[in-house]
Amino acid sequence: MKNIYLDNASTTPLRPEVIAEMTKVLTENFGNPSSTHAFGRSSKTLIELSRKSIAKNLNCSAQEIIFTSCGTEANNFILLSCIRDLKVERIITSKIEHHAVLHTLEVFEKQYNIQLDFVSILEDGTIDYNDLVELLSQNKKTLVSLMHVNNEIGTVLNLEKVSQLCKSYNAYFHTDTVQSIGKTEIDLTQLPIDFLVASAHKFHGPKGIGFAFIRKNIVLQPLLLGGEQEKGLRAGTESIHNIVGMAKALEMAVEHLETERNEIIALKNYFVEQLYLHFPEVVFAGKPEDTFYNVINVILPFDESKTSMLLFQLDMNGVAVSRGSACQSGSVKPSHVLEAFVSKELLQKPNIRVSFSHYNTKEDVDYLLEVLKKI
Amino acid sequence: MKNIYLDNASTTPLRPEVIAEMTKVLTENFGNPSSTHAFGRSSKTLIELSRKSIAKNLNCSAQEIIFTSCGTEANNFILLSCIRDLKVERIITSKIEHHAVLHTLEVFEKQYNIQLDFVSILEDGTIDYNDLVELLSQNKKTLVSLMHVNNEIGTVLNLEKVSQLCKSYNAYFHTDTVQSIGKTEIDLTQLPIDFLVASAHKFHGPKGIGFAFIRKNIVLQPLLLGGEQEKGLRAGTESIHNIVGMAKALEMAVEHLETERNEIIALKNYFVEQLYLHFPEVVFAGKPEDTFYNVINVILPFDESKTSMLLFQLDMNGVAVSRGSACQSGSVKPSHVLEAFVSKELLQKPNIRVSFSHYNTKEDVDYLLEVLKKI
Repeated sequence: MKNIYLDNASTTPLRPEVIAEMTKVLTENFGNPSSTHAFGRSSKTLIELSRKSIAKNLNCSAQEIIFTSCGTEANNFILLSCIRDLKVERIITSKIEHHAVLHTLEVFEKQYNIQLDFVSILEDGTIDYNDLVELLSQNKKTLVSLMHVNNEIGTVLNLEKVSQLCKSYNAYFHTDTVQSIGKTEIDLTQLPIDFLVASAHKFHGPKGIGFAFIRKNIVLQPLLLGGEQEKGLRAGTESIHNIVGMAKALEMAVEHLETERNEIIALKNYFVEQLYLHFPEVVFAGKPEDTFYNVINVILPFDESKTSMLLFQLDMNGVAVSRGSACQSGSVKPSHVLEAFVSKELLQKPNIRVSFSHYNTKEDVDYLLEVLKKI
Repeated sequence: MKNIYLDNASTTPLRPEVIAEMTKVLTENFGNPSSTHAFGRSSKTLIELSRKSIAKNLNCSAQEIIFTSCGTEANNFILLSCIRDLKVERIITSKIEHHAVLHTLEVFEKQYNIQLDFVSILEDGTIDYNDLVELLSQNKKTLVSLMHVNNEIGTVLNLEKVSQLCKSYNAYFHTDTVQSIGKTEIDLTQLPIDFLVASAHKFHGPKGIGFAFIRKNIVLQPLLLGGEQEKGLRAGTESIHNIVGMAKALEMAVEHLETERNEIIALKNYFVEQLYLHFPEVVFAGKPEDTFYNVINVILPFDESKTSMLLFQLDMNGVAVSRGSACQSGSVKPSHVLEAFVSKELLQKPNIRVSFSHYNTKEDVDYLLEVLKKI
């Protein structure tokens, strides 16, 4: 049976070079980075070299990178500390954020009695920048939390525009860049972003490790309390092999970005072209020509009743795609992202999210189309 | 140069079999456990098999095990939710807890305005059970948080006594078992413990993974918000390779417990015997005959001025030991644990914590003694 993985926005296979580095660390470097003896110091060195490497790839300073156990933890840490310690009174976000931000903010709204404002979403799945300006005009201590690349539809936030807007309105700006780090150029010296968040397993690194970028001179307090790791910002013994694996994965992602992006763009274009050819009535959530190059959300011109059958049939035929975020995969309800801007009529049609990596080929796309045609 | 690792209470080298399992998972099982397709399901299966294996080794049910990124996270999660969600008004703990508990509770004391009571510590470094009974007699909704095996001195809490006491006084009982899981028998069907915490890297597993045991029918709320992983108790994509590695490490620790414990007991006895022979005035923090079999805290009959030189000399000679918790290794101040029960006079003498694993040999001990004799 075929085994075709087209769900790279959910998670990605590790690069063999990353696995090799991790295995080396697991075998050779077990010392506790907080220990002052040689075993500890050699682990500490690995962590700090990894931090430098990551910082270099984002053009920020190493001390602005704080390692966390995942993107979710980094988001929780930043959002909580902005409210609790920076005394943010109001947060502007959107209905199409990942649950790691959206659910978290909904809980904090009640727990900390903050004002939560949602910027409008336009028909193409992008945020309404005019509405954002209007919201920012209110005179309150504000954090804007908007994701860079949407995980379900691939719409891209204009980071430059939004970060400059936030700066000019004196608002903090946090962006969930989990889908974009390692897949596009982000220069933190150019962009006045205050906080961003990454997860290694989205760019062919290990699961269980991520990082937060915290702009110099912004003083957050830790989410995890105890030891003094990460300059007191994240207690807990560091996962050295995962940190080294993450740094290696980002290094390779940046090194091969140009080539791999071109390969993936060609695949996506081919897929769209073939979809129009075989399913002339196909539509997309998010304009395929504007959305991020590795993600496409296809609304198929099939009967409503085929919704649950569709993923099942694809899975039976060895094709892995999803309907949206992996966190909601069990559900047959339309995703909260699509609900935010897709018409009721279209919401009833079955949809799939296809997300590519450089490991995919034209043959993978052909096979997916073949299976879709049979349904 | 020699390379002798005698700091196993700080962290432990991984077993080769654990590394092999982890490498296999990194290579073969990258699917997101939340995905419904075949890639996701195979990852999910690995996680649930690991959970079952861990539960079996503690004689509890799989649903009572929640994976976290480390022991610190598990402690933070439990302590926070006890206060915030179970509405505990008072916590009884001790001054000799690990910072993951002690610092956390000191912060929560202020943030949540709870009463924090410290049970007295006796001269041998054990807790005063009579004082605990007295504290428990106050009629308030109470959580008792006391560690099982102390990481710095190896004193052992009587889990049966304390858990039964807590039960009879209607108090919740949380115990940090980071130093004991995998190194002694813990039967959760016999012991009415409500919460316990483990960290894989303390029993020859990977760093960056741990778990919380939460007794059935106690409903906590998550520390990390977002997705529905871990039955809604811990958002964030699971670190599959680390989880599988942890389960394998515990499995092997339990399998070889008897043999390895006997080896380590013989080593510790030999070390004590030789210390008395070569340093007749040596004393110990915690009675060596009562403390846990792999930890010993030695107060050396050296001049006060040798404190900072001692670890340096050991390190220069390729011996890794510590003065206490790795988290405080940089400091020359006496540890908070020793300060809680050791006389002022003895506190000024240099001390070292030596902690063994089954990888250590009699030759390691001889070499350590040789270096100590030269100082």
